[in-house]
Amino acid sequence: MFDPVEKLKEYIRHASISTDPSAREGMRGAREFVSGLLGGLGFAVEAVPTALHPVIWAQRGGDPSWPHVVIYGHYDVQPADPLNLWQTPPFEPTIRGNRLYGRGAADNKGPLLANIAAVAQLLEKDPRLPLRITFLIEGEEEMGSPSFPAFLEKYQDKLREADFVFLSDTALPNEQQVVITCGLRGLTLFDLHVIGAKGDLHSGLHGGVMRNPIQALAEICATLHTPDGRVNVPGFYDDVREVEPWERAELAKLGGDAAAYAKFLGIEAFHTPPGYTPFEAIRFQPTLEFNGIGGGYQGEGTKTVIPSRAFAKISCRLVPNQQPARIKELVIAAIRARAPQDVKLEFVDQHQGDPYIVVPPGRPNTPPDQSPVLARAFRAADAAVTEVWGRPPLYLREGGSVPIIADIKRVTGLDSVMFGLFLPEDNLHAPNESFNLDVMRKGSETIAKILAAVAAGRR
Amino acid sequence: MFDPVEKLKEYIRHASISTDPSAREGMRGAREFVSGLLGGLGFAVEAVPTALHPVIWAQRGGDPSWPHVVIYGHYDVQPADPLNLWQTPPFEPTIRGNRLYGRGAADNKGPLLANIAAVAQLLEKDPRLPLRITFLIEGEEEMGSPSFPAFLEKYQDKLREADFVFLSDTALPNEQQVVITCGLRGLTLFDLHVIGAKGDLHSGLHGGVMRNPIQALAEICATLHTPDGRVNVPGFYDDVREVEPWERAELAKLGGDAAAYAKFLGIEAFHTPPGYTPFEAIRFQPTLEFNGIGGGYQGEGTKTVIPSRAFAKISCRLVPNQQPARIKELVIAAIRARAPQDVKLEFVDQHQGDPYIVVPPGRPNTPPDQSPVLARAFRAADAAVTEVWGRPPLYLREGGSVPIIADIKRVTGLDSVMFGLFLPEDNLHAPNESFNLDVMRKGSETIAKILAAVAAGRR
Repeated sequence: MFDPVEKLKEYIRHASISTDPSAREGMRGAREFVSGLLGGLGFAVEAVPTALHPVIWAQRGGDPSWPHVVIYGHYDVQPADPLNLWQTPPFEPTIRGNRLYGRGAADNKGPLLANIAAVAQLLEKDPRLPLRITFLIEGEEEMGSPSFPAFLEKYQDKLREADFVFLSDTALPNEQQVVITCGLRGLTLFDLHVIGAKGDLHSGLHGGVMRNPIQALAEICATLHTPDGRVNVPGFYDDVREVEPWERAELAKLGGDAAAYAKFLGIEAFHTPPGYTPFEAIRFQPTLEFNGIGGGYQGEGTKTVIPSRAFAKISCRLVPNQQPARIKELVIAAIRARAPQDVKLEFVDQHQGDPYIVVPPGRPNTPPDQSPVLARAFRAADAAVTEVWGRPPLYLREGGSVPIIADIKRVTGLDSVMFGLFLPEDNLHAPNESFNLDVMRKGSETIAKILAAVAAGRR
Repeated sequence: MFDPVEKLKEYIRHASISTDPSAREGMRGAREFVSGLLGGLGFAVEAVPTALHPVIWAQRGGDPSWPHVVIYGHYDVQPADPLNLWQTPPFEPTIRGNRLYGRGAADNKGPLLANIAAVAQLLEKDPRLPLRITFLIEGEEEMGSPSFPAFLEKYQDKLREADFVFLSDTALPNEQQVVITCGLRGLTLFDLHVIGAKGDLHSGLHGGVMRNPIQALAEICATLHTPDGRVNVPGFYDDVREVEPWERAELAKLGGDAAAYAKFLGIEAFHTPPGYTPFEAIRFQPTLEFNGIGGGYQGEGTKTVIPSRAFAKISCRLVPNQQPARIKELVIAAIRARAPQDVKLEFVDQHQGDPYIVVPPGRPNTPPDQSPVLARAFRAADAAVTEVWGRPPLYLREGGSVPIIADIKRVTGLDSVMFGLFLPEDNLHAPNESFNLDVMRKGSETIAKILAAVAAGRR
């Protein structure tokens, strides 16, 4: 008997922080743990090497006439800092109420285990299930999947044989309402460094003759938004695809209580681009955010220096059809044009990912050549969710990014069915991340029904 | 025989960082080292307790008709970070060329030892020298001397008996030219915290609905200067006392090569208030600087958070007759007025200090009631410097702050003769601080002559 909760506790103990070179042991442990699970279910498991963290490739073959689903997940997690804000240590899984707390519980260890548990249940019931399944579980998602595009290119011929991709790495708005995600924001990230004098200077002996790099950085960053909440970079919005009326209508069905959302975030007021509710802004609009800033003395008390340099970590969330490389160029060009001439600038490139959109069957803008297996998966999801959760799913774009979904589409032609399982209160990427165990159980049951329905038809 | 270089090496080994609670041992070591030196010269030495670090009070009494000089110094040093930029460890004194490297070498351990060595030499030559000397050496200068005003209040009656204060905690422009500092900038410091959501948020799931605290901080900081390099705070310049023509003329004698100065700093261009050369701006104009900024993720790679909060450490250097408390009020009021309404602000008060000015004898604006002993000290300094260095000193205001000089004036009525001994290239408050040993030797010789001349007259 496969107990997903016990497995999840074991899985979380492996501190698989992909960006932290000192967490190699946790990465290896998490990888071997998942490989062992899938091997136990009869999958042929391989750890396919990449430039950094191997991809787990687990295969259940079968007759070429059987439908073929690729299930995607990732075994790496975000860093856990600031550690002092965790109620219990991030890598010591703890159950409080119906929640399991730990780094990676919701992103993506719990949702991946819900998928594996569904497959385990199906194969237990019918070991001859006419469905080919390929698990692809990568270890670099939280770094922006730098090795995954090359991996896709290398194995594109094998992957093109599949019919569609299924994954649970997106969100539910609340415990009652399932969402099938039909779009994801892309992103592009870089660091901006502003450099003044060649060393830190005493602010008394030298203060008043030069522009402080922190001042220059603040002056640059302050130009990047308009007062009404848009990104103030020429050309930034040029390629933004207008949202379809059915998408706005679908989101309206979700309702959403703006006051409750503001309270949940703990903010004084929303600040959205004109013409968009907070819920629309997240899904349909791009952003420019400062993820970090630093420079000079940050300790207790005072140190009266003029620092030599200061930096900001900048990211843009992008919507279809913005191009990450183009947007990065535009933002950097705006910064160069606006920066004072008396400081030097350096840019450090970080990762990027395309936005993605898939249209479910039967919509005004559904592509006429949509894969019949993909369409069956969407319809099966509709029926299974209605049965298990008591109401049909909503088909919405998401604010988050899973950049490899667009990469998969570009390289292999495969579209994705994104069946979300984490909740806003799960605290992804933040202290006290947790996963709702009721959602895990119902999710697993639903996924088993979807895969059974996909298996019940031919290609 | 008193060997000041060997003593300085020993002194630097005590890591007396007053702001670092883990450096108590270094503070105690430095204090006991100096106390031992002065006790060895026959002074009655006491460590006078304060709220935090004791003040060393070392007394050489005598006949009430003898002139009485108070020699001020401090035994604490700045923090040494960033450690990786030091060529040799900050608390392992190393001689390279004619320089001794180590944290505190120039600020203030070397200059203080030059004074002690001068006294040692005088007393060796004439054990009955008719001069009363009080050393006051505090341990909180690098924290803004929080305990010193209360100390002055408590002992003001004893201190009022003295004639003037002598100290070496200011700068020389170069190795050839002595400067007697006749003014110091004051300062006022505080931290600004900007708070958004109640926790760090995922920039995909929530990005686009709220103002990022880093953005708000940048927008606030960017308003605090005008494009032409002035501080953009209403009322900021209201109390600035016009510089006297003789002060500008004295500074003009110094000359100063702006291109060489820019090269020394390693900056692309100067950015001074209109109407002031770089050299004038430092001495005659107030500033608003950002000494540090921080918020969100600052590590390697990326973390796509919207941080809950961000902060800046802000300081203003002030000139006569600006009032630190008033200026802090004005800056905070401007920040409150300009901050977006959708974030919360918090201010953390740090220390402050008044600006100071003393006019040497024989100037158009010399006060008619100036102490004759102070006037004699100034004239003795003029003669001694001319003799030892081959040219007379310049009488200039400085950009740095020694806030207790203004406190001493306010509480005890005593003015100060500030005989500078450190050079711009000594890297005060920065990595690879050092002290020029030729300057130390000549400085000590000059100070001995000045004190001898003061002792040669009556009160």
